[in-house]
Amino acid sequence: MSTEATKIQVPITTSVATATATSSASGASEQTHEHHSKKNKKAHHFNLKVPKGTKDWADKDMVIREAIFEKLVNLFRSHGGVTIDTPVLELREILEGKYGEDSKLIYNLEDQGGELTSLRYDLTVPFARYVAMNGITNIKRYHIAKVYRRDQPAMTKGRMREFYQCDFDVAGSYDSMVPDAEMLKIVSDGLHSLGINEFKIKLNHRKILDGIFEVCGVKDEDVRKVSSAVDKLDKLPWEVVKKEMCEEKNQPEDVADKIGEYVKLHGHVRDLLAILKADDELMANESANTGITEIETMADYLEAFNIESCISFDMSLARGLDYYTGVIYECVTEQSAPPKDAAKKKAKAKAHQKEEDASEYVGIGSIAAGGRYDKLVGMFLGTNSKGKKAPSIPCVGVSFGVERIFSLIKQRASLVEKIRPVSTQVYVMAFGGGKDWHGFLPERMQIASKLWEAGIETEYLYKAKVNPRKQFDAAEKSGCPLAVILGKEEFPEGKIRIKKLGTGLTDEGDLVSVDNIVEEVKKRLSEVNEDGVDQVSKLLQDL
Amino acid sequence: MSTEATKIQVPITTSVATATATSSASGASEQTHEHHSKKNKKAHHFNLKVPKGTKDWADKDMVIREAIFEKLVNLFRSHGGVTIDTPVLELREILEGKYGEDSKLIYNLEDQGGELTSLRYDLTVPFARYVAMNGITNIKRYHIAKVYRRDQPAMTKGRMREFYQCDFDVAGSYDSMVPDAEMLKIVSDGLHSLGINEFKIKLNHRKILDGIFEVCGVKDEDVRKVSSAVDKLDKLPWEVVKKEMCEEKNQPEDVADKIGEYVKLHGHVRDLLAILKADDELMANESANTGITEIETMADYLEAFNIESCISFDMSLARGLDYYTGVIYECVTEQSAPPKDAAKKKAKAKAHQKEEDASEYVGIGSIAAGGRYDKLVGMFLGTNSKGKKAPSIPCVGVSFGVERIFSLIKQRASLVEKIRPVSTQVYVMAFGGGKDWHGFLPERMQIASKLWEAGIETEYLYKAKVNPRKQFDAAEKSGCPLAVILGKEEFPEGKIRIKKLGTGLTDEGDLVSVDNIVEEVKKRLSEVNEDGVDQVSKLLQDL
Repeated sequence: MSTEATKIQVPITTSVATATATSSASGASEQTHEHHSKKNKKAHHFNLKVPKGTKDWADKDMVIREAIFEKLVNLFRSHGGVTIDTPVLELREILEGKYGEDSKLIYNLEDQGGELTSLRYDLTVPFARYVAMNGITNIKRYHIAKVYRRDQPAMTKGRMREFYQCDFDVAGSYDSMVPDAEMLKIVSDGLHSLGINEFKIKLNHRKILDGIFEVCGVKDEDVRKVSSAVDKLDKLPWEVVKKEMCEEKNQPEDVADKIGEYVKLHGHVRDLLAILKADDELMANESANTGITEIETMADYLEAFNIESCISFDMSLARGLDYYTGVIYECVTEQSAPPKDAAKKKAKAKAHQKEEDASEYVGIGSIAAGGRYDKLVGMFLGTNSKGKKAPSIPCVGVSFGVERIFSLIKQRASLVEKIRPVSTQVYVMAFGGGKDWHGFLPERMQIASKLWEAGIETEYLYKAKVNPRKQFDAAEKSGCPLAVILGKEEFPEGKIRIKKLGTGLTDEGDLVSVDNIVEEVKKRLSEVNEDGVDQVSKLLQDL
Repeated sequence: MSTEATKIQVPITTSVATATATSSASGASEQTHEHHSKKNKKAHHFNLKVPKGTKDWADKDMVIREAIFEKLVNLFRSHGGVTIDTPVLELREILEGKYGEDSKLIYNLEDQGGELTSLRYDLTVPFARYVAMNGITNIKRYHIAKVYRRDQPAMTKGRMREFYQCDFDVAGSYDSMVPDAEMLKIVSDGLHSLGINEFKIKLNHRKILDGIFEVCGVKDEDVRKVSSAVDKLDKLPWEVVKKEMCEEKNQPEDVADKIGEYVKLHGHVRDLLAILKADDELMANESANTGITEIETMADYLEAFNIESCISFDMSLARGLDYYTGVIYECVTEQSAPPKDAAKKKAKAKAHQKEEDASEYVGIGSIAAGGRYDKLVGMFLGTNSKGKKAPSIPCVGVSFGVERIFSLIKQRASLVEKIRPVSTQVYVMAFGGGKDWHGFLPERMQIASKLWEAGIETEYLYKAKVNPRKQFDAAEKSGCPLAVILGKEEFPEGKIRIKKLGTGLTDEGDLVSVDNIVEEVKKRLSEVNEDGVDQVSKLLQDL
């Protein structure tokens, strides 16, 4: 430690000087923090942690997450997408009446004078607000940003209170099912590009579901609540859902049983289409008929995109949000469902009062999802001078669950091992000794400046005089491939040494002219980094 | 408009169906929105706008902002930086007692049960919390993210309530002034890389300032408030600041006058160092002496980095935040200061009750700023088992003001004109007609899929049958360089046409084999896009 640094580390007294440090950047140890909180209350200590359901991202995790973003941005741009960025805060009235039961999960800001605002719950409603506010009639936009939900977190499963959404949406009046089919192509291509090849995209249509409920005898006013019961079929067995329908949602048993027959249906798109089309009662229902016809149109396009094999047309898919009006879809993997012994694990966790994180007994859920919402923009459009409401702008979109995808990729140990969070390519060192040795610090700065100017990532140790061992340790920590060494005798003669790192102590490297340092370094870097492909991007593809 | 789209545009009734649409994505027309707000209150309409001091980013603005981020990320990585991401929410107690007078600008979240949280005010305090919480002893980290301040906005000057900070910080015990000097190198290189070449970095040292105040006779307990008066010298003339010192901060006139003599001093680092070192009274003060010695050490390094010419050692620079303990710096351009007739403009705006936005009468302020803060991490560190406080981790950092830099770059009309927000390279079209013409939609999807697979950005019109004019219009709107055309007769024979766009109607393009479409397209794209350099990045550099 330098004298300068020692000098400034005097004890200080502040309002928070008694903070208790508990070391963790993951939500998994939140229990520990809570524990400290209680213990420290009397001593006026405070809890050094992040808010519940949030976490710090750093190191390799950050590299993986950014690689996921990069892949998806390239994909979205490949389909003609432009990006927008809306504020994290929205006026509260913009969000009201859009999320049904989930509205209780919205974070409100304190009324500190001025407007009432809330944190956005998703990127879809702000997008619809943006389209309406700017009188846009068509746009393909992507948006990668954080959203906020006061939900029960399951941190290691990627279920968090602050999390990223990664959305692509198409607004505009186009021919039936064309952008809709492209959304599924985007889901499929996006996941493959991230090395996720084992997935299934569940597909359904709100109009078919509505038709089924009508045919089964559900009253109009009960459709949404019956639908939200069906939505739970990915987590609960039919018996439990049926019980909810009959007892909580007051449906007669025969109605529930008939629904049960329908929601069991799933399979290849063409196969299930044939079954549904043979159901005269269903085909006679206008809503169901419209939906089935649309899925039939879509089938042609799914085949043109060659993705029909990963689609499962599934009558049990309902999707929770109120605003969907057409096709809906949800992409799942083996790990999306809760563990088989979830109920037991949950009971055990509750008994031990470990209610803070649900990771043990939930699945990661869907890793991408979306659907058509043709009326949402219209909710923000005004009436014209004649009092006539402006027509809505039809939309269809998809959202990738980045944290959930991250939790899948993070399991690839061989990938994670290879990641280097630092970009440094060259470590500039000085070797010397004796009475007149000053450490060549300004000289190292000059050489570093030359390399920076040439776009080469370069570091040196922030110390005036330092021994070779410490410099090699620092270089090794960064994982950089080259050292550039200023020797006490060599450098004043215009010579500088370049050494490949990791080649052992006996390799002294090459002595080159200081004037040629940039070219000589570039030459060696091109040997080390065989191709120009970004490391993680390449690793993701390899796996 | 297709029949499908028409069908779904039925009028709907919702709780917000009477929304008034006012079209604007910029804060400049906020007055209009406010106006609507009052007018509409009775009619239960609501205001279609974003919260005060925030805005939507889109289109070319978004491209410019992302190009700025990219430049700065490359710079930070070039200096060995790794990135972290902390939550937008922090526990309220983490932020308390860190920002002095500015604490009143913090956004609090409503108490909805659970922890009390606030939106982060900057990235520095969360960084210090992160370093302390994870027991980190050294790190070079960058972080680009939004922060929140309930301040008076000046939208067109880049002063907003939600804005990006773009921070690079070095934590760790190193030799005096080494990372500090590198921060100024980073400011200088960063701005040059963005085409901003006319700037000045004001440099000062908190210990020199403290020494000056002591020497001038300011009492210990008054130092912070006198310092915050000095901080206003970039916006107000000395007479006004002096008045504040004497009347509001109760300093005797001779004390203020003596301070006035010191804060006038500014100039090249070596020149001002010579003047200060000749001041025996000042040199006898321990704090000033330490600061002056450190700046002298720094001068060597600034010369090694060859950036001494853009530095102005300036005794009037004080910086508002409480946490700085060593060097402080602030980078300004000609447009940083308010307009000369600011007072008149402000009075006029107030008279017209235009208090919502201050753009007319403020400058853009500093475009990058920072300093050394050696005690902030310590505020979060606990005591060990013997009740001894853990030593702090010394830090130095810099923050780029992205929105302010954006407002400078946005003025380069020739740059803005050239920006294309869409990446599309190829537009796939179908030409045909007659009774049996179906529009080749699935075929266009297949060709697009081939091109996507090869990494080529591709669009086609989402309509089954559409005439050539509409397809060319859509291609032109995207600005893409190539069209790939499926002719009714040609395509079934395995032939496809590639046409460079913008070459006129007489150029029919080349007929190639469908099997070779990817190679043929790639060949032509390489001719159009002469080099691989990203468009905006290149444009920024050119200007």
